[in-house]
Amino acid sequence: MNGAERLVATALKAGIEVCLANAGTTEMPVLVAMDAVPGIRPVLCLYEGVCTGAADGYGRMLGRPAMVLLHLGPGFANGVSNLHNARRAGSPVVNVVGQHATWHIEADAPLTMDIEALAGTVSGWHKTSESPESIAHDVSEAVTTSLRGQISTLIVPNDYQLAEASNGEVPGPVPPTFEPVDEELVAQAAQLLARENKAALLLGGQGLRERGLRAAARIGAVTGCGLVTPTFPGYLERGLGLPDVARLPYQPEAASELLSQYETFVLVGAGEPVTFFGYEGIPSRLIPPDRKKLEMVTENQDAAEALEALADALDAPTWLSIAGNLRARPRAPGVPNGELTPESACQTIASLQPEGAVIVDEGLTAATTYYPLTAGAPPHTVLTVTGGSIGYGMPCATGAAIACPDRPVINIQADGSAMYTVQSLWTQARESLDVTTLIASNRSYHILKLELARAGVTDPGPGTLSLVDLDRPDIDWTQIAEGMGVPGVTVTTAERLAQELRKAIAEPGPHLIEMVLAMPGP
Amino acid sequence: MNGAERLVATALKAGIEVCLANAGTTEMPVLVAMDAVPGIRPVLCLYEGVCTGAADGYGRMLGRPAMVLLHLGPGFANGVSNLHNARRAGSPVVNVVGQHATWHIEADAPLTMDIEALAGTVSGWHKTSESPESIAHDVSEAVTTSLRGQISTLIVPNDYQLAEASNGEVPGPVPPTFEPVDEELVAQAAQLLARENKAALLLGGQGLRERGLRAAARIGAVTGCGLVTPTFPGYLERGLGLPDVARLPYQPEAASELLSQYETFVLVGAGEPVTFFGYEGIPSRLIPPDRKKLEMVTENQDAAEALEALADALDAPTWLSIAGNLRARPRAPGVPNGELTPESACQTIASLQPEGAVIVDEGLTAATTYYPLTAGAPPHTVLTVTGGSIGYGMPCATGAAIACPDRPVINIQADGSAMYTVQSLWTQARESLDVTTLIASNRSYHILKLELARAGVTDPGPGTLSLVDLDRPDIDWTQIAEGMGVPGVTVTTAERLAQELRKAIAEPGPHLIEMVLAMPGP
Repeated sequence: MNGAERLVATALKAGIEVCLANAGTTEMPVLVAMDAVPGIRPVLCLYEGVCTGAADGYGRMLGRPAMVLLHLGPGFANGVSNLHNARRAGSPVVNVVGQHATWHIEADAPLTMDIEALAGTVSGWHKTSESPESIAHDVSEAVTTSLRGQISTLIVPNDYQLAEASNGEVPGPVPPTFEPVDEELVAQAAQLLARENKAALLLGGQGLRERGLRAAARIGAVTGCGLVTPTFPGYLERGLGLPDVARLPYQPEAASELLSQYETFVLVGAGEPVTFFGYEGIPSRLIPPDRKKLEMVTENQDAAEALEALADALDAPTWLSIAGNLRARPRAPGVPNGELTPESACQTIASLQPEGAVIVDEGLTAATTYYPLTAGAPPHTVLTVTGGSIGYGMPCATGAAIACPDRPVINIQADGSAMYTVQSLWTQARESLDVTTLIASNRSYHILKLELARAGVTDPGPGTLSLVDLDRPDIDWTQIAEGMGVPGVTVTTAERLAQELRKAIAEPGPHLIEMVLAMPGP
Repeated sequence: MNGAERLVATALKAGIEVCLANAGTTEMPVLVAMDAVPGIRPVLCLYEGVCTGAADGYGRMLGRPAMVLLHLGPGFANGVSNLHNARRAGSPVVNVVGQHATWHIEADAPLTMDIEALAGTVSGWHKTSESPESIAHDVSEAVTTSLRGQISTLIVPNDYQLAEASNGEVPGPVPPTFEPVDEELVAQAAQLLARENKAALLLGGQGLRERGLRAAARIGAVTGCGLVTPTFPGYLERGLGLPDVARLPYQPEAASELLSQYETFVLVGAGEPVTFFGYEGIPSRLIPPDRKKLEMVTENQDAAEALEALADALDAPTWLSIAGNLRARPRAPGVPNGELTPESACQTIASLQPEGAVIVDEGLTAATTYYPLTAGAPPHTVLTVTGGSIGYGMPCATGAAIACPDRPVINIQADGSAMYTVQSLWTQARESLDVTTLIASNRSYHILKLELARAGVTDPGPGTLSLVDLDRPDIDWTQIAEGMGVPGVTVTTAERLAQELRKAIAEPGPHLIEMVLAMPGP
């Protein structure tokens, strides 16, 4: 076996099933090795940000990494911003980046750049392989470290890929282990919650998956505490049979208002909430300084385990005894009629989304009313733009659909953000992925208009407007979708959206629906 | 004036005329300032790689920078790979990147990342402003350093943009100065060329612009030396009235063959040529080690001045006495007929390109036969993918058209590379830019097939093929173009290409022509 074959064999043994690739000459041996050592499904993306965003979606859904295969520094650079989102989501991702042959680097050929410096900006672990023999160990370490919920980036020189490597057994995967929960902190949290009736659990990580949410519901049942998630959770299970977790609003005033109801906060898997941007006169940290705060887990501990321990410490009712109540909530109101607005679009989606749906939400301003409508929807999963780097939605939906082929993926997608990584549609077409992309077409970076208004710029000048409006020309989303092999349609009423959404959900393969929205003023 | 207004006022005074922007909340004060202090033309790009690639094209054409306005680390990251090309081209570019308010950084809000580390990977100069008052000086320094042919990146915290800054005079521009040419090296080069009849001038930088080329032609006339440019020059003037400069082939064997004709090399503005990738058994450096080499200028010296000094030292004939010969060459053969192949497509373009055309060549394998056909074409400029990071062509063409609105821009564009920064088309439509995009549609990363073949993989497996073929589905370029407001058409014969190219050149505004190419085997 050569180094590249060892790389693929080790990745396979470590559980890698998918390779999201935009490769070049320096990665050719890895491409060839995927045929020689078959088992990994190669998926071509026509831009690197699609690869990395898809790996983020894949990692969020399955809790284990896909491999991303990228070409040298410039190729990796194109993937950085979606890796930033993945890092904030705690997604396991394994990047493999080809490097020039070791003896060629000093020539400073055109594509040469400092890959390590780029990798360091987003990776929890990164390394350049030091010999052909070390590649297998390096891949194993990359997978292991990624399983802690972080980005691993392995840079592999082309000559090491090609060189004969030892044929010893490739190392197997090392399952991740959480550190045990701190019993002292559990006891402290239980005391706080038992005596304080204005308390909230701030949930993140494993706390937003079914096991954690069930324990949180038990805690809520015994203490009456609130359940809150940060504005942009990486992965959130939701709907009938699960407790309703309040999502912190994006606007700092609204977020403060929600949090100010509470006197005590127990943070379980979530960091302390901060404002998205720094606004003059508003503190960065949203919890008032006079409130009690207890951070119950580190990032190396399991939030779900901590929540279970806390529920037990509080002598909370069993899950079975409360589960019935959570299944009794009415689902969202029916499909509305008439003009398509952000509100009526969200209501339509909330009404029609099927059980098991994966909602990839990059709807931004158009989707603010969506979340509260779905506490009673059939069980589903919500993914959001954790790192705030737009252009995450379409790739993330692509990766989620690869990870979970039996689940319908619905991507609520702002138009401005959609353009960043629009190439995703082609991969959705090639792989026949069951993704319905709902373009919220308001023909502006509407969120920037809101930010201008809150900064006191109520009558922006022509220069400013030219940089926040997406008109002149309007983007024709139907043509762009069909240009990449995805059936597309434009709707302007709620009825038509309902009709097309039902059809898209019923039919296999990708669909794009442009929702032309009548927007309120900023 | 606040900091943002001082920023804009200083940029204006320093000669900045265009701002290529994809801004967000942290850059809002700069947007507003462009209305308050008018004079800079704001141009919206729907992806950051379009902004930076356009700034590269703009900088190459005019030799002075546009301003690029980007949003925090993730926004800058999306621009890095085209900045890499700009760096290799020696393009002047000034990036302005918004940063969170200084007091908000420690909150580690979602978008926070290490912008300085990213900036360091491509910038010759980068800095974070340390106070509102320092912004004006920082902008002036950014412009000045960029004029040395490099990337300047200024990071400006949002609170400094908003704060009142002193109203003192904003600093004016500092014109760049080259260091004087080394007379001793000129004398040595003259001696070498006078006694050696197998010599070549390797030209780069200012040596490939009219003044440098005229001096090179004089040197060629008196010594018989060859004139050679590296494979991917940043900016090259060409056509009737200018000497024919041989372009080093991409394939290392062909490049070696060309160079092995010569015994002596004088490098004037070009680095020593190296292979694009490291190929086993082929040295990185293409000039055989036994040849004489003389590097005549540093990057701080003017290659054109050095060439003129060398011509004078050699007592070369005057430009006027040789210019007539260079205007006598026949232009390219006429428009061919029949099936569209890479060869017939290149012949058609070479035959029809008008005087003053700017040829942005990212045609890769489809365009290899183009260059030799145009030595006798009407005078034109050629820009190529200097850093090898694909996705440069469409943005670069966009920026070249903004810089030179009176010159027709023809972008010979490989289909795979086109997808990286396809959002460029929208900006071309909005700004009514006179760009004709010729998509070389071979529905594969054909260059990778060639690289596979040379690595001995003549029968690639299905996994490998799935990652180098762009079919299933075929991309419909006409629909994509029209979806972004650019008229598009597909042609399959040379006659039709000629017809549509004539029309596109005659009509103002952008056009896209998909050339469906019959390709030879790899």
